[in-house]
Amino acid sequence: MTHPTAAMLVIGDEILSGRTRDANMHYLAGQLTAKGIPLKEVRVVSDDAPAIIDAVRALSARYAHVFTSGGIGPTHDDITADCIAAAFDRHIDVRADARQLLADFYRETGRELNDARLRMARIPDDAVLIDNPVSVAPGFQLENVYVMAGVPSVFQAMVASVLPQLTGGQPLISESLRILKGEGDIAAPLGELAARYDDLQIGSYPFQQDGRYGTNIVLRGTDPERLNAALAELKTFAGDL
Amino acid sequence: MTHPTAAMLVIGDEILSGRTRDANMHYLAGQLTAKGIPLKEVRVVSDDAPAIIDAVRALSARYAHVFTSGGIGPTHDDITADCIAAAFDRHIDVRADARQLLADFYRETGRELNDARLRMARIPDDAVLIDNPVSVAPGFQLENVYVMAGVPSVFQAMVASVLPQLTGGQPLISESLRILKGEGDIAAPLGELAARYDDLQIGSYPFQQDGRYGTNIVLRGTDPERLNAALAELKTFAGDL
Repeated sequence: MTHPTAAMLVIGDEILSGRTRDANMHYLAGQLTAKGIPLKEVRVVSDDAPAIIDAVRALSARYAHVFTSGGIGPTHDDITADCIAAAFDRHIDVRADARQLLADFYRETGRELNDARLRMARIPDDAVLIDNPVSVAPGFQLENVYVMAGVPSVFQAMVASVLPQLTGGQPLISESLRILKGEGDIAAPLGELAARYDDLQIGSYPFQQDGRYGTNIVLRGTDPERLNAALAELKTFAGDL
Repeated sequence: MTHPTAAMLVIGDEILSGRTRDANMHYLAGQLTAKGIPLKEVRVVSDDAPAIIDAVRALSARYAHVFTSGGIGPTHDDITADCIAAAFDRHIDVRADARQLLADFYRETGRELNDARLRMARIPDDAVLIDNPVSVAPGFQLENVYVMAGVPSVFQAMVASVLPQLTGGQPLISESLRILKGEGDIAAPLGELAARYDDLQIGSYPFQQDGRYGTNIVLRGTDPERLNAALAELKTFAGDL
């Protein structure tokens, strides 16, 4: 594994209750793949301090980068920042730099920077702020964990602030072939192909269309020549079946 | 916690690469919530045996029920059944009952039950088959783990086979209120309300509409009287702001 690896932690009861359909995982997965940083694991946990702390520690120890979404707003159920501080044994309080960002923003927009909103300036010691061009309240990086908002527009803006700073591997490129045969008809030669091209990821995704079975084969790797060679072989045996 | 709890394990490179947007998590979350079995954690891992085995063991030990999706088809990247067997130290091979289901289906549909398709009859010892009315190849239950397909139509059919057998808690009911105030304006009285109604889950979900900030408040619980009492208080202070 020459690539730095990544994991994501989605925090929020609303995802687990089925009320909200998470959009951030799919977005981050696409961005990381394009950057050459494979996303290896995602966990979704509720707004529960022990669950968040355990998951942050486990993922931080196992992967090069961890991205979190959710739980950094001003209300009582927003406990992510305090949990990240606890996970890494850091002190946390309202921090002057974050407070200044919020004070300027609320003064300009004529709203009150009350105690609840000040909660969004709670940042652990040693954390580096992540810019939020949408609604100002910052995310932050502590150790290898990037803490970002759950609202998709803000999450995406924060990802755009963070990703250019990371060193990716060679971007994964992919080729795909749509075959109008069921998985069961192509599994044997496909498995043999996958064994010979073990530097590529070869995935098989069945579909049904108008009552017929078909399979999308996706080849992923970093070397275009290997990818093209495998695709050529795949086309040959797909045509023979 | 009087409710039996649940976790889900989504298995598949295609989700983590961003190629496919997972639909099963959101579906299962809604079904479990309606049944009164709270979904407490979801993990998404790639088609990698150690990752699958570790996650299955961790979730099985921690939650009453574990539901998996993905990786039980006929191709080389479908390794879920073998990983579940390994996680629980069970022998696995083609099993006569599953083989019979497939043999009947493929004979009726005029296709060949080849070695690849026979992989879908690999079922661990002691597992109970889960009915698949869509495409016949069964899922299975072993210990407290329900192993189901990743294709959404098949996943949903298998969930429908499994859920009626489970004993749920009292179904969670919910009320919600849409307030045209930002989270920061309501956070203080909302936190105070949440502290007094700690038998309810009270979630706060910000939105923006036409440049204005608003918040959806969702109250969840099992006791309709408590829910209504909290909702009445919420309406009072929302109107006062």
